[in-house]
Amino acid sequence: MKNDHRFNEEERAAIYRVIAKRRDMRHFLPDPVDPNVLKRLLAAAHQAPSVGLMQPWRFIRITDTKLRSKIAALVEEERRRTADALKERGDEFMRLKVDGILECGELLVAALADKREQHIFGRRTMPEMDLASVACAIQNLWLAARGEGLGMGWVSLFDPLHLAELLNMPTGSKPVAILCLGHVDAFYPEPMLKTANWANERPLETLMFHNAWNGII
Amino acid sequence: MKNDHRFNEEERAAIYRVIAKRRDMRHFLPDPVDPNVLKRLLAAAHQAPSVGLMQPWRFIRITDTKLRSKIAALVEEERRRTADALKERGDEFMRLKVDGILECGELLVAALADKREQHIFGRRTMPEMDLASVACAIQNLWLAARGEGLGMGWVSLFDPLHLAELLNMPTGSKPVAILCLGHVDAFYPEPMLKTANWANERPLETLMFHNAWNGII
Repeated sequence: MKNDHRFNEEERAAIYRVIAKRRDMRHFLPDPVDPNVLKRLLAAAHQAPSVGLMQPWRFIRITDTKLRSKIAALVEEERRRTADALKERGDEFMRLKVDGILECGELLVAALADKREQHIFGRRTMPEMDLASVACAIQNLWLAARGEGLGMGWVSLFDPLHLAELLNMPTGSKPVAILCLGHVDAFYPEPMLKTANWANERPLETLMFHNAWNGII
Repeated sequence: MKNDHRFNEEERAAIYRVIAKRRDMRHFLPDPVDPNVLKRLLAAAHQAPSVGLMQPWRFIRITDTKLRSKIAALVEEERRRTADALKERGDEFMRLKVDGILECGELLVAALADKREQHIFGRRTMPEMDLASVACAIQNLWLAARGEGLGMGWVSLFDPLHLAELLNMPTGSKPVAILCLGHVDAFYPEPMLKTANWANERPLETLMFHNAWNGII
């Protein structure tokens, strides 16, 4: 079928390439991020879909170096607790680099807003759709950053209550991501957890079903 | 700073444009989606980041027309319940088109896998990060679809337990999106809920803080 809405071949290739080359980065160069680039990235995040147009995302830019250290300490605490919880894989986990908080050029915290209970459209039975909207915003930011040649890492190794307290967040709001953003020496050629033999990727075919769970496609 | 990892100007423009032009569509043409395009879109979804590389997404392709009708009926039921819950805005809500399940060329259900409790990395204090990963996969699919000139709509108006039952999903798994995908006559120039005066968009500046909640940027 003829389709007038299609992007041209080079544009489509760019879209697929940025999706393929985006990585969850943990190694950064300390160089600052151009403020105009940061603005464009946040504007891209803000163009995400949101359930009932509630736009539940909030972004906190961290520039205070003492605050950055405190956030790093929170992550380090959770890293150790996670290692304990992982039992026999704890040592292996402790050898992984899980964040670039102290190195990255720009640090952001993405959060869910307070007063979300006012939004019922698309959330009566699925209240967690607000988090899905924030995740879409973060994915927009991630892809736009990759296009700009910047790396990003989503860190979820923290106690959300402690981080909320540190950032003076109101009841009902919740931090969902510490985002490390910045210049990188090189993008990983594949997910770092694959290179590090932490986990294997599964082929898409094993995750696709037809008309029912386990239905063969 | 010099940045060798940057996409070229045309490529960057395509990335920003696809992010800006993506819409949550509810109006579709009935023409089928090219199976090769569908494969590319799902491959793009599958390249999403995932917490601890757990790849929690599952996709169920719905081609059975009776099953499609049953899914539409589930959404219709939840639409009425939502209208009731919205009280004084219920009538206004009932006038909105909230899905294109019966018209779209391709219908997919995106779900969270079962046995997620085995994955602790990045989820000990934030178990909902698996949903965030699925949302990133859906956003990839959405953007790639827009590049291909196809519209998509994320419907979350359903009872997840009923939909899981309909699709014979195992305990521990959970449907998170009914995805309507297909050709469209035209993409909305702005979010449909804005055009319909359901909600206003807020400027990004009001959602950005500095070093603390409500900290001025």
